[in-house]
Amino acid sequence: MTMAKELTPRAENYAQWYNDLVLKADLAENSAVRGCMVIKPYGYAIWEKIQSELDKMFKETGHVNAYFPLFIPKSFLSKEAEHVEGFAKECAVVTHHRLMNDPNGKGVVVDPEARLEEELIVRPTSETIIWNTYKNWINSYRDLPILCNQWANVVRWEMRTRLFLRTAEFLWQEGHTAHATREEAEEETVKMLNVYADFVERFMAIPVHKGVKTANERFAGALETYCIEALMQDGKALQAGTSHFLGQNFAKAFDVTFLSKENSQEYVWATSWGVSTRLMGALIMTHSDDNGLVLPPNLAPYQVVIVPIYKNMEQLAQIDAKVAEITAELKKQGITVKYDNNDNKKPGWKFAEYELKGVPVRLAMGARDLENNSIEVARRDTLTKETVSCDSIAGYVKNLLAEIQQNIFKKALDYRASVTRQVNSYAEFKEEIEKGGFLLAHWDGTPETEEKIKEETKATIRCIPLEGKKEAGICMVTGKSSAQRVLFARAY
Amino acid sequence: MTMAKELTPRAENYAQWYNDLVLKADLAENSAVRGCMVIKPYGYAIWEKIQSELDKMFKETGHVNAYFPLFIPKSFLSKEAEHVEGFAKECAVVTHHRLMNDPNGKGVVVDPEARLEEELIVRPTSETIIWNTYKNWINSYRDLPILCNQWANVVRWEMRTRLFLRTAEFLWQEGHTAHATREEAEEETVKMLNVYADFVERFMAIPVHKGVKTANERFAGALETYCIEALMQDGKALQAGTSHFLGQNFAKAFDVTFLSKENSQEYVWATSWGVSTRLMGALIMTHSDDNGLVLPPNLAPYQVVIVPIYKNMEQLAQIDAKVAEITAELKKQGITVKYDNNDNKKPGWKFAEYELKGVPVRLAMGARDLENNSIEVARRDTLTKETVSCDSIAGYVKNLLAEIQQNIFKKALDYRASVTRQVNSYAEFKEEIEKGGFLLAHWDGTPETEEKIKEETKATIRCIPLEGKKEAGICMVTGKSSAQRVLFARAY
Repeated sequence: MTMAKELTPRAENYAQWYNDLVLKADLAENSAVRGCMVIKPYGYAIWEKIQSELDKMFKETGHVNAYFPLFIPKSFLSKEAEHVEGFAKECAVVTHHRLMNDPNGKGVVVDPEARLEEELIVRPTSETIIWNTYKNWINSYRDLPILCNQWANVVRWEMRTRLFLRTAEFLWQEGHTAHATREEAEEETVKMLNVYADFVERFMAIPVHKGVKTANERFAGALETYCIEALMQDGKALQAGTSHFLGQNFAKAFDVTFLSKENSQEYVWATSWGVSTRLMGALIMTHSDDNGLVLPPNLAPYQVVIVPIYKNMEQLAQIDAKVAEITAELKKQGITVKYDNNDNKKPGWKFAEYELKGVPVRLAMGARDLENNSIEVARRDTLTKETVSCDSIAGYVKNLLAEIQQNIFKKALDYRASVTRQVNSYAEFKEEIEKGGFLLAHWDGTPETEEKIKEETKATIRCIPLEGKKEAGICMVTGKSSAQRVLFARAY
Repeated sequence: MTMAKELTPRAENYAQWYNDLVLKADLAENSAVRGCMVIKPYGYAIWEKIQSELDKMFKETGHVNAYFPLFIPKSFLSKEAEHVEGFAKECAVVTHHRLMNDPNGKGVVVDPEARLEEELIVRPTSETIIWNTYKNWINSYRDLPILCNQWANVVRWEMRTRLFLRTAEFLWQEGHTAHATREEAEEETVKMLNVYADFVERFMAIPVHKGVKTANERFAGALETYCIEALMQDGKALQAGTSHFLGQNFAKAFDVTFLSKENSQEYVWATSWGVSTRLMGALIMTHSDDNGLVLPPNLAPYQVVIVPIYKNMEQLAQIDAKVAEITAELKKQGITVKYDNNDNKKPGWKFAEYELKGVPVRLAMGARDLENNSIEVARRDTLTKETVSCDSIAGYVKNLLAEIQQNIFKKALDYRASVTRQVNSYAEFKEEIEKGGFLLAHWDGTPETEEKIKEETKATIRCIPLEGKKEAGICMVTGKSSAQRVLFARAY
């Protein structure tokens, strides 16, 4: 009777498995506020690692952090015509600034006298408030580029929410850059797409397709939206990050111009790009199994857990001493270690617990190991065990962590390859989409055909891939010409 | 005509000097949203350093980070009787969750159909939502202690705002801990007070008094509020951090009990503690001068700036090469360096700019220095200059940074000592308080006397000091007995 056994198997109900896992592995839970989650310490520790690595990459590419207001005046949202359509619908609206004691003595009520002159919207994204600010920062080409990022919470009033994947409030980063030329802004958009892809593949061990969204799927207010698309174990796609080329739309909406080198007033070019706590959902769904989480060593809150197996306190004291030596060796190698010698729990309980929590490597030491100067090494990804000499354990574990990181990436890559197919007719498409995975098919480039496919099959064009060979063909639906195959899937 | 010259001198108008400095040093500015600030990249870089060091100290004392919802259901605020009095007044109230196109075609309006059943308050502090969550995390003494912190934004609808010092939205951290015993919770409260004092003195170079607040000044819902109090250059005090012993108030309000070792159901004991972006205001006002910011080396975004002085591009190339060597040496010592060889600005402009920005050490290299293998070293704190051999520059700068850190702390400490006086009569108090600074005086311990002093002199009891000698005496106002002198000041 371990906790891990209580997970619903993936094959039985994938959505339930996901929810069980998020709760039982102590990653997050629903709060008393509809659609808002509590990110628990273990889940937050993973998010902190994601933040820290991404932040380093942003800074290495010349970006700085700043902080802009939580609230956006309602009128700002209306300034960019497409943006308002996309974001000014389901959102949290602040209308009052005071509560007062209920005249009937029942707690507190909104003070009707304290109505705001203009309602404030809790930011669903910050283009408008930021471009209203940039207006005052930019006079000449010498003030450009501006390369700002912010780590923040945002709110979108989602009707159907799922922990990490879709919540009313979520945490994210949003980069907002301002440039003197179109070329420079386009270059920035692609640079940040590559930063995201690099991060997600190297740290999260999730293979992604880089591509461009169709007009239908574009960010509200963008000229072009680039994205990275991942594939979950149930065959559904998940958009893991987006980078938008915004053209001069926000500069025009907020009247942000600069004096160019050639002495003319020009509108500023913009990009924005973001990833969110949704990445946590992608991480969980890509690698984990029916026993629990599987974490990539590069993001695990602790990479190694050590569990002592002992019959009495004297044995435990001996093991404690030996483990202290091993821990010091591991730390010297830059490995994060937790030693769990809590006497209230049995080793079997601990094994199941750390399996559920996805700790990449578990070491166990008993009286026999102590005698033999050896230790048992268990891998979370393959669930295999070996006995290793204590003398070489630090080097062994270091290599093993690198191998696990590689292995789970390869496993995800192999899985993706196994469920990615080219299809050439709409009939075949309809049949194949039921099995999940990515389908590469020809499409005539029109929103109408895209919409028809979506309505009839629930599949969307995840992206027009930037990489891979570009063979021309004919649209599977209309027979019209197509420059390259595009990537379809049902998606989160 | 340098930018720095444009600062209003402190002696002329201290408040204006502060505001000028925050704006001109690119720390923060007001936004389009009433009372909400934009924290600009240079200001945010200082805040990031504060965060990073504090976060390390929290983790070293056993705390973990988590994240709780931005919104608090209105009814939660009413559950703790004193808490609601303190926090449920001026706050941002979300009443609706949707906008719609204005039927009259004028942008967007609130959709009257989308009224929330219960209003949500943007968190002014998170005790209520967190204790409602802890209720589900705590069953037995084995689940305790819980030692969580969160880094978050909070909103309090302040009527009169000032950048960093008092803003409607601000950034902070709030620790919320749960304990099995009163003693353990009290110990935690004092431990975190000491962490704050240690951080503020060692990193911010601001001397603080540790003490206990009077009942009047206590956090709404606390049994005891501990605080650290700093003194600004204009003689006004500033509360720099608070740590609250909450007793069982929130456990009772949210019915959070645990099964004790002795097998009885007990209410959980609580603490909460926080510091905010207000610390930025304290940092600025403690050390800076009429030339601009003075930053402690331990928190400066870059500790050293190097400025080349050259007549032509050939000279610049030679200096560039030499500076590259020096920069490498400095970085080896763990020193952060910016080399500003921007050709668009003159050295004089750069000198003034980095003085304004408070960079602790400025190095300047001209053709003559290059010849002599020397470099000019200017200290921001004393505005003095020396010429130092390039061969020993890294070690020299490393020592100098440590000396500057010490020196500005000592300067603040000396200033504080010079304006701290014991006063023994109310007449003397009234006269002395006009000169600013801390006054140590006897008080009879009643809220009435405290209130009278506040009304008549605008001075408040900053704290009942924990340190220093405790001599008994008689209240300067009522002549009743007093166990020790307490610390008075006018305050921010």
